[in-house]
Amino acid sequence: MRSPIPEYLDEVLRTCAGDRAGAVADYVPELAAADAEQLAVAVSAVDGTVYEAGDSRTSFTIQSISKPFTYALALADRGYEAVLAKIGVEPSGEAFNELSLEEGSARPRNPMINVGALAAHTLAGPPGASRAERFERVVSGISAFAGRRLEIDEAVCRSEMETAHRNLAIAHMLRSYEVIEEDAPHVVEDYVRQCSLLVTTRDLALMAATLANGGVQPVTGEQVVSRDVVRQVLSVMTTCGMYDAAGDWVTTVGIPAKSGVSGGILGVLSGQVGIGVFSPRLDRHGNSVRGVRVCERLSADMGLHMMDAPAPARSVLRGGRVLHGPASRTALVYELQGTIQFAGAERLVHGIAHTPPGHNEVALDLTRVYSINPVARRMILETVRRLTHDGHAVTLIDPDRVLSDPVAGDGIRPRVVDTWEWGEAPAT
Amino acid sequence: MRSPIPEYLDEVLRTCAGDRAGAVADYVPELAAADAEQLAVAVSAVDGTVYEAGDSRTSFTIQSISKPFTYALALADRGYEAVLAKIGVEPSGEAFNELSLEEGSARPRNPMINVGALAAHTLAGPPGASRAERFERVVSGISAFAGRRLEIDEAVCRSEMETAHRNLAIAHMLRSYEVIEEDAPHVVEDYVRQCSLLVTTRDLALMAATLANGGVQPVTGEQVVSRDVVRQVLSVMTTCGMYDAAGDWVTTVGIPAKSGVSGGILGVLSGQVGIGVFSPRLDRHGNSVRGVRVCERLSADMGLHMMDAPAPARSVLRGGRVLHGPASRTALVYELQGTIQFAGAERLVHGIAHTPPGHNEVALDLTRVYSINPVARRMILETVRRLTHDGHAVTLIDPDRVLSDPVAGDGIRPRVVDTWEWGEAPAT
Amino acid sequence: MRSPIPEYLDEVLRTCAGDRAGAVADYVPELAAADAEQLAVAVSAVDGTVYEAGDSRTSFTIQSISKPFTYALALADRGYEAVLAKIGVEPSGEAFNELSLEEGSARPRNPMINVGALAAHTLAGPPGASRAERFERVVSGISAFAGRRLEIDEAVCRSEMETAHRNLAIAHMLRSYEVIEEDAPHVVEDYVRQCSLLVTTRDLALMAATLANGGVQPVTGEQVVSRDVVRQVLSVMTTCGMYDAAGDWVTTVGIPAKSGVSGGILGVLSGQVGIGVFSPRLDRHGNSVRGVRVCERLSADMGLHMMDAPAPARSVLRGGRVLHGPASRTALVYELQGTIQFAGAERLVHGIAHTPPGHNEVALDLTRVYSINPVARRMILETVRRLTHDGHAVTLIDPDRVLSDPVAGDGIRPRVVDTWEWGEAPAT
Amino acid sequence: MRSPIPEYLDEVLRTCAGDRAGAVADYVPELAAADAEQLAVAVSAVDGTVYEAGDSRTSFTIQSISKPFTYALALADRGYEAVLAKIGVEPSGEAFNELSLEEGSARPRNPMINVGALAAHTLAGPPGASRAERFERVVSGISAFAGRRLEIDEAVCRSEMETAHRNLAIAHMLRSYEVIEEDAPHVVEDYVRQCSLLVTTRDLALMAATLANGGVQPVTGEQVVSRDVVRQVLSVMTTCGMYDAAGDWVTTVGIPAKSGVSGGILGVLSGQVGIGVFSPRLDRHGNSVRGVRVCERLSADMGLHMMDAPAPARSVLRGGRVLHGPASRTALVYELQGTIQFAGAERLVHGIAHTPPGHNEVALDLTRVYSINPVARRMILETVRRLTHDGHAVTLIDPDRVLSDPVAGDGIRPRVVDTWEWGEAPAT
Repeated sequence: MRSPIPEYLDEVLRTCAGDRAGAVADYVPELAAADAEQLAVAVSAVDGTVYEAGDSRTSFTIQSISKPFTYALALADRGYEAVLAKIGVEPSGEAFNELSLEEGSARPRNPMINVGALAAHTLAGPPGASRAERFERVVSGISAFAGRRLEIDEAVCRSEMETAHRNLAIAHMLRSYEVIEEDAPHVVEDYVRQCSLLVTTRDLALMAATLANGGVQPVTGEQVVSRDVVRQVLSVMTTCGMYDAAGDWVTTVGIPAKSGVSGGILGVLSGQVGIGVFSPRLDRHGNSVRGVRVCERLSADMGLHMMDAPAPARSVLRGGRVLHGPASRTALVYELQGTIQFAGAERLVHGIAHTPPGHNEVALDLTRVYSINPVARRMILETVRRLTHDGHAVTLIDPDRVLSDPVAGDGIRPRVVDTWEWGEAPAT
Repeated sequence: MRSPIPEYLDEVLRTCAGDRAGAVADYVPELAAADAEQLAVAVSAVDGTVYEAGDSRTSFTIQSISKPFTYALALADRGYEAVLAKIGVEPSGEAFNELSLEEGSARPRNPMINVGALAAHTLAGPPGASRAERFERVVSGISAFAGRRLEIDEAVCRSEMETAHRNLAIAHMLRSYEVIEEDAPHVVEDYVRQCSLLVTTRDLALMAATLANGGVQPVTGEQVVSRDVVRQVLSVMTTCGMYDAAGDWVTTVGIPAKSGVSGGILGVLSGQVGIGVFSPRLDRHGNSVRGVRVCERLSADMGLHMMDAPAPARSVLRGGRVLHGPASRTALVYELQGTIQFAGAERLVHGIAHTPPGHNEVALDLTRVYSINPVARRMILETVRRLTHDGHAVTLIDPDRVLSDPVAGDGIRPRVVDTWEWGEAPAT
Repeated sequence: MRSPIPEYLDEVLRTCAGDRAGAVADYVPELAAADAEQLAVAVSAVDGTVYEAGDSRTSFTIQSISKPFTYALALADRGYEAVLAKIGVEPSGEAFNELSLEEGSARPRNPMINVGALAAHTLAGPPGASRAERFERVVSGISAFAGRRLEIDEAVCRSEMETAHRNLAIAHMLRSYEVIEEDAPHVVEDYVRQCSLLVTTRDLALMAATLANGGVQPVTGEQVVSRDVVRQVLSVMTTCGMYDAAGDWVTTVGIPAKSGVSGGILGVLSGQVGIGVFSPRLDRHGNSVRGVRVCERLSADMGLHMMDAPAPARSVLRGGRVLHGPASRTALVYELQGTIQFAGAERLVHGIAHTPPGHNEVALDLTRVYSINPVARRMILETVRRLTHDGHAVTLIDPDRVLSDPVAGDGIRPRVVDTWEWGEAPAT
Repeated sequence: MRSPIPEYLDEVLRTCAGDRAGAVADYVPELAAADAEQLAVAVSAVDGTVYEAGDSRTSFTIQSISKPFTYALALADRGYEAVLAKIGVEPSGEAFNELSLEEGSARPRNPMINVGALAAHTLAGPPGASRAERFERVVSGISAFAGRRLEIDEAVCRSEMETAHRNLAIAHMLRSYEVIEEDAPHVVEDYVRQCSLLVTTRDLALMAATLANGGVQPVTGEQVVSRDVVRQVLSVMTTCGMYDAAGDWVTTVGIPAKSGVSGGILGVLSGQVGIGVFSPRLDRHGNSVRGVRVCERLSADMGLHMMDAPAPARSVLRGGRVLHGPASRTALVYELQGTIQFAGAERLVHGIAHTPPGHNEVALDLTRVYSINPVARRMILETVRRLTHDGHAVTLIDPDRVLSDPVAGDGIRPRVVDTWEWGEAPAT
């Protein structure tokens, strides 16, 4: 069987290809020379399976899409506090190249506009790193998200340096406020080189999938940055990623995303997929016209909007069944299923609290459960503790050991079995 | 067994009670008289089970927390386009009572600041409704979220009207730009009455749970607003709900939320829980000091941050097993489990596409599946169609009929059974 | 002989009449009905002689040209400090109807924009005056500048009240910041009535002449406000009078001025003339298109720009002549002429200091002097004192007693004569 | 006799010396090293006589006081239009080193803030001049105002370059908007050198006197820039010279002025005096604390406020006297006096127009007149023409030939005499 997904992506591209609105960025000659008709999409599962369509293997410079990744590197290398002291997290409501800082704090408002991205660049690598070391950290760090060493487009880099007046203004302003301490022209040059890294749409999908996968590159398996760093990066992408159209993007597309001036867009659906899109013509916000349309289409078709509540789940608590054992013993078995998070564990607790078991022996059947998050684990163990104190003998049926380290409070250890079996009769 | 959740909530309140920073809002005498020590939290499951602690049954005026709800009513009554023509969705980066409109469009920047909330108030109810009809729509509409008829605190209302200069300025400004067409002082008076609706922390939790539950009030079962309206409201709360600290809130708490000047905060975790918190002392942004701390604690403890990827799920595709039947027939059964969304369906498609079944008969076992969203349903049916065209006889094992209306493209209808049974031998 | 000035003014109007750019203000129906072709100019000497051309006797509503006059009344009635505490003096760089206050001080930026003019209106009259008393003070005060009781155009007033949303917004904002303490709608109503006072272009010229004449109405002779108040009003008109084109106006026209939305412009050349111009079509700044052209023409033709240095004056010190008297007495007479201000007195002092008289008797001949300002008077008297201490017998030849109260320091009283005569021989 | 002016200046300094508020600028180490107690004042008459007190011969770097002079050079070298296309004339209401341009035009708002001063620097000298030529033009041009070749403080220059981040940011921003076309770091370096020119307080007074004297350096006699350029420069200094306190300065001091960060202030009273003041401690606006106080004192004492109307002049028209001549001839003689500008000429015209001469022979006695400006000259000649057409024989008594080129319209040439004498009998 051929997967229907590539065909679906082909169809999405066909639908959007007719839109020839917008214009290729022309402030850099090398960018202006791009073939405006190029169009590509790629979707990567969190295991690294990539579906792609259109010009998905064509290289282009990463530009602003590098911003969330250097921000991630800065957070990884310097820690949350040090980075937050230098760069804010509030949407700016202004253009990507604005020359202003947050009132009062004199920080760049967020890392997704140039002023914040230049600052973030200087925070990659350990304090005291040389310029060359820092730059290597940026290149290898961003490459780690893609899962391959990325090259620099030297022609675009040179071309951009010739018109880098605005970024030079920003860097000198940052220096004047002591947000950066490095030589301003050097920072701009290195930042422009960072933006000149060559990626394909497929790369974007894999980089996004690394974020969707909690920081683990799906193909190489490398934990590029921690889960906490990913959370911070995705949060900031949500409110600041799409330039001054952030609110509009959140309501209509609802995927944390970042766009770049060469026409790329990267989108992340946490836990599910990474998305890359590419088409060079830009709207007045600087976002790829057809790229935005593709994302809107994917969001609508795939139900990817982050505020779309999943349809009310059938209860994780399937109910209880009573088992009759030797010597008139009876046991009440609660069957759980699916992914257990707070809301699921609450269902279990709620059920037991409102309809007391009434049986001496109680079991929680986790056979159909395939994931328990930490808060749910704590709630289940607390339930075990309370049931035990209430006089019940508690058993966990957990063939896959989904509930790790099953020790409840007060040192209580429930019996753990693969399938139900009558154990020793409990004391009554 | 007593549920451990109330105890947990008690403990959270104890931890946060010591923080006496901030000050009670004093611009309205009646608000200034509030007991600053009050502290409450309530969490409602999407079935209406409410856990509460502290002063959760104490009434206070809803104030700005009414904003997302009148916005929801406006969207429900006038439609997305009509409302968007009058009120934007971008974060403002300014104070809640700012006197300015979006440049160019001359719209309020979003419905979570006063200027947008006053405009939203006038859009509740059908066009042409009388003032009294519109106000009744607002009261009954907000009450529907709470599941009970809310009363108005006339004393606070009168007290606020005496110092409503700023809101009068805003309303007259809106009138001068023709964003509103009603008499400005009337609009302010009705808006102040709307803000004077009395709620408890428990009410907030249930109102939030209605949003978390796709617009269905968990107790009354009423579909108060549609799922699309909820999505829009939650999106706007995400970027604009917590005044000018929206970015900070998204990164640290990560729950769509709205706060009010009397000290309440309402938070929504879509599909999971609704949260209400209350404590009168406010920080400089106008958010309840202890309310914010409680939310941060809940978010951290419960893993509620919306950018927290769930731990990589055990595959929804548990694998296949080969069944041997009569007359040397063999069938390959793919076992699925859990909630199937795009990413899960992709796993199935991927598995089948990369490892062709190699058996004449193929079954998809949905016994352990408890939810399939529309895109996943379409992908599964497309898989059925392709397998069929590839010459396989396809069976769905779906005792709970989780896959609704199982007709694939080209009119193909797979066999559906409750448990595996060998049917008629397929043609080969 | 017929004066050539009216002919000159006729010619100026002819030159400017062809410019039909701009549009009549249309936000108030009654204003929109104005005959767009009307054109008038009037120039008043500081003695009240008025030269006029065009529709100079046509009435129109005074509108914003009332602003400097209520500001003057506020200064007169409450004093500089009380008014400055409420209203700033800095140019705003924004539109006349902006809804904002000075950061930090929360004052209107200046009294020439609506927000400041509304505040100024409430400061006219004594503290504690009733609303009716304050309004009467405004009408009679502005009328005193014109030299006749001005009437109100009730139709325009009513018409403006119907669209006064913006001013209502401003007034409520002022009330919310406690810049005004009165009922906001009342203040707007009275302010709109103030703006509806009917004036002619001739009135404007005489009102301007009152300012040019140090606050004394040239025809009635009434000291309407003090010289200090006039100085403050003219200073603020210089930097803030012509809306957001203040800098452009100062460089090109260079006359303190104020324009109004019905098409009037009032200009003041301190000590020389008052100017009124009227033509209804406005440019994008809200200034009369042909009015601005007339003012530019008058400024260029008449050399009225306030930064035009007068041609270097022939020295006020004409030189000295030696008189030979009885008994070999000789006297050195310094002849002065013209208006003596600091720079002129400095010439005298400089001359005497560098070329010591060398004669026992010294006279200052003030026959040709027709004005001495206070600092020049003090310098002349100090010169008398020093000459006396140096042993000279000093005489003032001052037939018109231009040097008032001629007592120098140390009680020294020079001899004062109408024409030179040899007095008693001084002691040597 | 010793001039009392130095003593007066000494006394002013004594009064202000006690004010030790403010702080020496510390952003440049070399500036921070200044002796904070220094205090000086100098006043220059328009003939170059300088009165000085305190440390008036101490050198300090000119800093921002160079701004009006490079602006003057730019106007002189490129013309009004070319300069206005690049630099506006509106007050900015913001700090001297703001990083923003006028909305819409993308010009610096005015030449008195850094962004405009950097642009003005590049406009000095002819288009196409080399960098060295342009810099020499700036140095020699500013020196010409002072009347001596100014030196550069290389230590301050180097020190400032090390902390010139903000100016580099501004220059790169200007380059990005194509307001400047030169290499941004070069422009900053040259601008910093311009600001490092060493001046004394005495120099400031003479530079100011050059502006007060219509562009003619009083000592060297050089016409450094034209009268029109001076008018433009003084106009802009009036509204933009004292940073963001421009309105306050105009109302309280009322002298076009410019201050610098090393503590200098330069003030110009057109036609009268140039003022220099110096004391290093600055207020929060960046103006010298004691310098401002000295200027306030001088303004109040000397009556220098530009909006102070001169005391109403005794009429320039002293009246008429009738002369009786031979053969029953009679002549009416109008005696004029003082400086005749528009208002004065109007008095003459008014008198003649309202009280027709009634004599065949008419004379205008200009003996006591010492200055007539162009418009007054034209009005007098027009009067001569009209009197002649009315049948009068007109004579000018003008011993000093104050009325240049006395040819009226229609080729009419009045008789000109030194003192009255009966000429040929006119035809009747």
